[in-house]
Amino acid sequence: MTTQSTDIHAAIRAADDRFEAAFNRGDAAGLAGLYTDDGMLLPTGSDFVQGKEAIAAFWKGAMDMGIKSAKIDIVEVEQHGGTAIDMGQYTLRSADDQVLDQGKYVVIWKHEDGTWKLHRDIFNSSLAQQ
Amino acid sequence: MTTQSTDIHAAIRAADDRFEAAFNRGDAAGLAGLYTDDGMLLPTGSDFVQGKEAIAAFWKGAMDMGIKSAKIDIVEVEQHGGTAIDMGQYTLRSADDQVLDQGKYVVIWKHEDGTWKLHRDIFNSSLAQQ
Repeated sequence: MTTQSTDIHAAIRAADDRFEAAFNRGDAAGLAGLYTDDGMLLPTGSDFVQGKEAIAAFWKGAMDMGIKSAKIDIVEVEQHGGTAIDMGQYTLRSADDQVLDQGKYVVIWKHEDGTWKLHRDIFNSSLAQQ
Repeated sequence: MTTQSTDIHAAIRAADDRFEAAFNRGDAAGLAGLYTDDGMLLPTGSDFVQGKEAIAAFWKGAMDMGIKSAKIDIVEVEQHGGTAIDMGQYTLRSADDQVLDQGKYVVIWKHEDGTWKLHRDIFNSSLAQQ
């Protein structure tokens, strides 16, 4: 049980590393490629964003707004076969390393084609709203 | 498979009905009682809210801000044994039936003490941000 928990944590951490790397090199299409084919993003201020093209456009928009890096910190991961439930925190920074946003997320991952892919991705800011 | 999917959908819908009923009668403690003992709420503009006391205080605050009813519409539910992953939409209304907020959620449910309880509850507004 402990071994399994450690394994899934490491596997999701590796997937998060790919997410951070794609984000930090400004590769919105690469980010979208980390989602399942029917992946969905649930961002604040928007309806459901479904499919790789729409997901790429969303992240491209975030990058165009000046977000240059994303850091992900896992709080907990729970595995159910080919599904993993991941909860954690994120930090978004500008090119000059200012924190633009900090918040929380829940990601449902699916194991597809030998790798873990984001399937449902919901997040929100922890900062006080204006 | 279809039968199981229908069963879990009906079970989560019944739990949502209890949530809506507690909300609509202004019963913040009753709402908190629908969460697991270590349940967590992940609201926009706040850090993680953990435990029934903090969850009750959060929902009391929302009610005090004028939210009088909550409507929940399930988009999909997926069951993994005693865990269910639920994604959907919510609508919050004032006493005079004005829509105060519409948004999306992901709830991780756990089957405890013979019933489905909210374990992780994250949501955000779909309305354009000011």
